[in-house]
Amino acid sequence: MTTAALPVARTVAALRAQVAAWRAAGERVALVPTMGGLHEGHLALVRRARDLAPRVVTSLFVNPTQFAPGEDFDAYPRDEPRDAALLAAAGCDLLYAPTAGEMYPDGFSTTVTVAEVSAPLDGISRPHHFAGVASVVSKLLNQCGPDVAVFGEKDYQQLLVIRRMVRDLDMPVQIVGLPTVRDADGLALSSRNAYLTPEQRPIAGQLNAIIKAAAEALRGGEAVEAVEASAQAALSQAGFERLDYLEVRAADDLARLGPGPIAAPARVFVAARLGRTRLIDNWPV
Amino acid sequence: MTTAALPVARTVAALRAQVAAWRAAGERVALVPTMGGLHEGHLALVRRARDLAPRVVTSLFVNPTQFAPGEDFDAYPRDEPRDAALLAAAGCDLLYAPTAGEMYPDGFSTTVTVAEVSAPLDGISRPHHFAGVASVVSKLLNQCGPDVAVFGEKDYQQLLVIRRMVRDLDMPVQIVGLPTVRDADGLALSSRNAYLTPEQRPIAGQLNAIIKAAAEALRGGEAVEAVEASAQAALSQAGFERLDYLEVRAADDLARLGPGPIAAPARVFVAARLGRTRLIDNWPV
Repeated sequence: MTTAALPVARTVAALRAQVAAWRAAGERVALVPTMGGLHEGHLALVRRARDLAPRVVTSLFVNPTQFAPGEDFDAYPRDEPRDAALLAAAGCDLLYAPTAGEMYPDGFSTTVTVAEVSAPLDGISRPHHFAGVASVVSKLLNQCGPDVAVFGEKDYQQLLVIRRMVRDLDMPVQIVGLPTVRDADGLALSSRNAYLTPEQRPIAGQLNAIIKAAAEALRGGEAVEAVEASAQAALSQAGFERLDYLEVRAADDLARLGPGPIAAPARVFVAARLGRTRLIDNWPV
Repeated sequence: MTTAALPVARTVAALRAQVAAWRAAGERVALVPTMGGLHEGHLALVRRARDLAPRVVTSLFVNPTQFAPGEDFDAYPRDEPRDAALLAAAGCDLLYAPTAGEMYPDGFSTTVTVAEVSAPLDGISRPHHFAGVASVVSKLLNQCGPDVAVFGEKDYQQLLVIRRMVRDLDMPVQIVGLPTVRDADGLALSSRNAYLTPEQRPIAGQLNAIIKAAAEALRGGEAVEAVEASAQAALSQAGFERLDYLEVRAADDLARLGPGPIAAPARVFVAARLGRTRLIDNWPV
């Protein structure tokens, strides 16, 4: 299969010029924000974006402000030519890949924070992460001005943070979430899976099975606390070296559920570590 | 003089419908955000907005999140019929007067903060003020989607905060600042001047004369510290009961200047109190 080279915009001005030309032709625009390291999960977002709008922009920016010191900012997979080829084949119209200087000019000093849904789970493990995410996504949305933006449910808490921000700040864009794309054994696709050693990979595959079993137990009427304790034990048993969290929370606002059986739409959330690799996943109840 | 009744939008949807109709007709739109209590200073902003765009929206919303407990949120002047009549006469096309529920629905939890330029001056006297301002202005800009928004230089620090926010978040709008409109004795027009007693009013009139004299002394080469000390003494002498600040700072980023004579574009900033009334002003050097 051959695909034409994907046009690339490096500046806000170039991005806006292209989007304005599409708008002048009456075409709707969808944005898929990514940090690159693309896999089938990202490409599913791009294909969904194509269904929603005739023009699709994918942004590629490894955003430093959502990484803490000591996290994997430097190690994060970067291969723009490979990402661009995958995007072209998936039907993306424009790759927006700004420099750090374009995104964060001298004197940059504005932060968007979302309370409540940012607080638990990853908000505890990664204290400034969601402020970095909300701020950069607000920039990308303002830079591109899409009709719709598409995000994966793998980062479910991030999706809630972005939905809340867009609602609270009245940003004129529709946010669409897409179910997680998985390997055959259930492992959620993630750019960070590339860090896993051959020995770690089968252990990682058990993460999804354990939270699916937890969701099943909750559906069967078991108490939240007992389900969490069982799942935590199963993760340790499976070989996960450190558990950031395994918690059952409300699907809409991440409120704590229990004690006892659940009485509202819920989701099981997990973040666990294998060596230097941090894996997250979630599953609906 | 008779003027047609001014159309009023109470919801984001109604505002957007009107703005979309103007856009469909190829018309540019300007926004003038206000908290009501309109005076000639606001009307100058509306007239300037008219010069910048054929369609002018003025928002009227007394924003609770920029007042601290104990400040004058409840006492703030509210007279929408009077404001609407003044706006109609000044050439405004639409009054956008949302309810608090429309602006801050249940679960509202997003804040926009601007570091650095928010920190000194009013940022010290009113610690959460500029986060409230930045957040509500980002909402108003997103709700209306204007080409240009006009603000007064009387709230000079606020203007810098908004400019920085718009630049940092890449909001697609031009921000225009307008010189302060003043009474004959130099008192900057302010909705809060209505709080002044007949005894306080002549004292208030000296505020501007004192910072003008300070700017003159700086232009003459006097040291920042000496000028600040003289002006502070003059304010006390004039009868101001409490001084929040009188400081000379850089005009672009509010950096501290001195010691010694100034070497960059500067501005003299003051906030002082007469009874329960807090007055602010600023003057270029």
